[in-house]
Amino acid sequence: MRNLKLLMAYNGSRYHGFQLQPNAATVQGTVEEALQRLLGGERVGIIGCSRTDAGVHAREFCFNLHTESGIPCPGLVKGMNALLPPDIAILSCEEVSESFHARYDCKGKEYVYLLQCGAARDVFRQGMALHYPYALDFGRMREVAGLLEGEHDFAAFCRAEAKAHLKSTVRRVDKIDISHEKDTVEIIVRGEGFLHNMVRIIAGTLLYVSEGKRSADDVQQALCTGDRARAGKTLPPDGLYLNKVFY
Amino acid sequence: MRNLKLLMAYNGSRYHGFQLQPNAATVQGTVEEALQRLLGGERVGIIGCSRTDAGVHAREFCFNLHTESGIPCPGLVKGMNALLPPDIAILSCEEVSESFHARYDCKGKEYVYLLQCGAARDVFRQGMALHYPYALDFGRMREVAGLLEGEHDFAAFCRAEAKAHLKSTVRRVDKIDISHEKDTVEIIVRGEGFLHNMVRIIAGTLLYVSEGKRSADDVQQALCTGDRARAGKTLPPDGLYLNKVFY
Repeated sequence: MRNLKLLMAYNGSRYHGFQLQPNAATVQGTVEEALQRLLGGERVGIIGCSRTDAGVHAREFCFNLHTESGIPCPGLVKGMNALLPPDIAILSCEEVSESFHARYDCKGKEYVYLLQCGAARDVFRQGMALHYPYALDFGRMREVAGLLEGEHDFAAFCRAEAKAHLKSTVRRVDKIDISHEKDTVEIIVRGEGFLHNMVRIIAGTLLYVSEGKRSADDVQQALCTGDRARAGKTLPPDGLYLNKVFY
Repeated sequence: MRNLKLLMAYNGSRYHGFQLQPNAATVQGTVEEALQRLLGGERVGIIGCSRTDAGVHAREFCFNLHTESGIPCPGLVKGMNALLPPDIAILSCEEVSESFHARYDCKGKEYVYLLQCGAARDVFRQGMALHYPYALDFGRMREVAGLLEGEHDFAAFCRAEAKAHLKSTVRRVDKIDISHEKDTVEIIVRGEGFLHNMVRIIAGTLLYVSEGKRSADDVQQALCTGDRARAGKTLPPDGLYLNKVFY
């Protein structure tokens, strides 16, 4: 049995997230369907590095699959791209050891939250950025981003409904960068693992800090108390990209 | 009666072109509907600088309109953007002299044909670029682009069905530039006026030249004889943008 590791990109706008669901278009379902056609009927389940929510995008998403097929890797990339819809693209495929597991072996992830900052909304980034036509206070945002780096209890930065199922809400954020080029601002968050909605709440908190609706002290308190109300709002999925996965 | 000059951008993917048509979504129809709502029922026809075909985009499209409304220009921009769908955005509005006419007064236009050249298709530019994952011979393309500059009979670079209605197929192309940055190639064509499909055929001809399917001599012959077959194919609308309009 071969074990194949693939990277793909997808525009999540019209999908109900990555993970397979009955009666809903998902990235996993679409990829598995294309695979089955390519492999002449062999049904193959894919193992994703992560879940992504409805409307969230991936510039680089990793998954692995086991197959009996002898199809060479470049042929699999070409064949899959011919069968997949234009909002999903396979970037690469390589043969890996039997033990490789896209989720368990993932050492870290990088997400980007993308803001489009011009006065007029960019009609060519519909569903692919948050239009935010207000001035940003990068100094304040970077100060608070620094507070969030490191290992903390991120209970205040987690979707409430998701917390009940978790053993721990402690996570380590390795780095938060804020880049600014022309009318695009990227909030880049790298870490080992993330809670549900964590990046969208971090990005929303940084916007609230810029707007003066939250202070550095509020954010410190959010980390100490786990009080969701001291963090900012959850930004919409449109601007969120899984950017890189580390192994 | 005020005469207002507006600039807008639109993603043409889901429209049957700019111009009003019964029973089809058009940019003009969508804008006129939003205007009517904003102006409390006043029906206002807009005068566009140009037609654009189904699926063609505009980074800058100019139109003017006459209205009795006293709504200030900034309010009109804001109000329209609140009412328009996310794939159309008003960029600016100014009061102009009574005689200004967006079509008749237009002195020139610049179109861009956009190629996305990476090996994998960019899932975030679906419908907004032509995926062209092959090497390009920029030297040859620029040589032939130079031949097309100036005043010529562009009969070979016009949609056949459109020619019958025209007095003349002579047009002046002021400049053709080919820019290349990362995985994006832009073929930029500036001129006084254009025939139907002219930019898409020029871009298709330059690709054929790069691929060795047409020579500089073929293109010279196309200009001399008006023989459509000596030019290249008509590229799909996805990559075409009205980029600027000059007054």
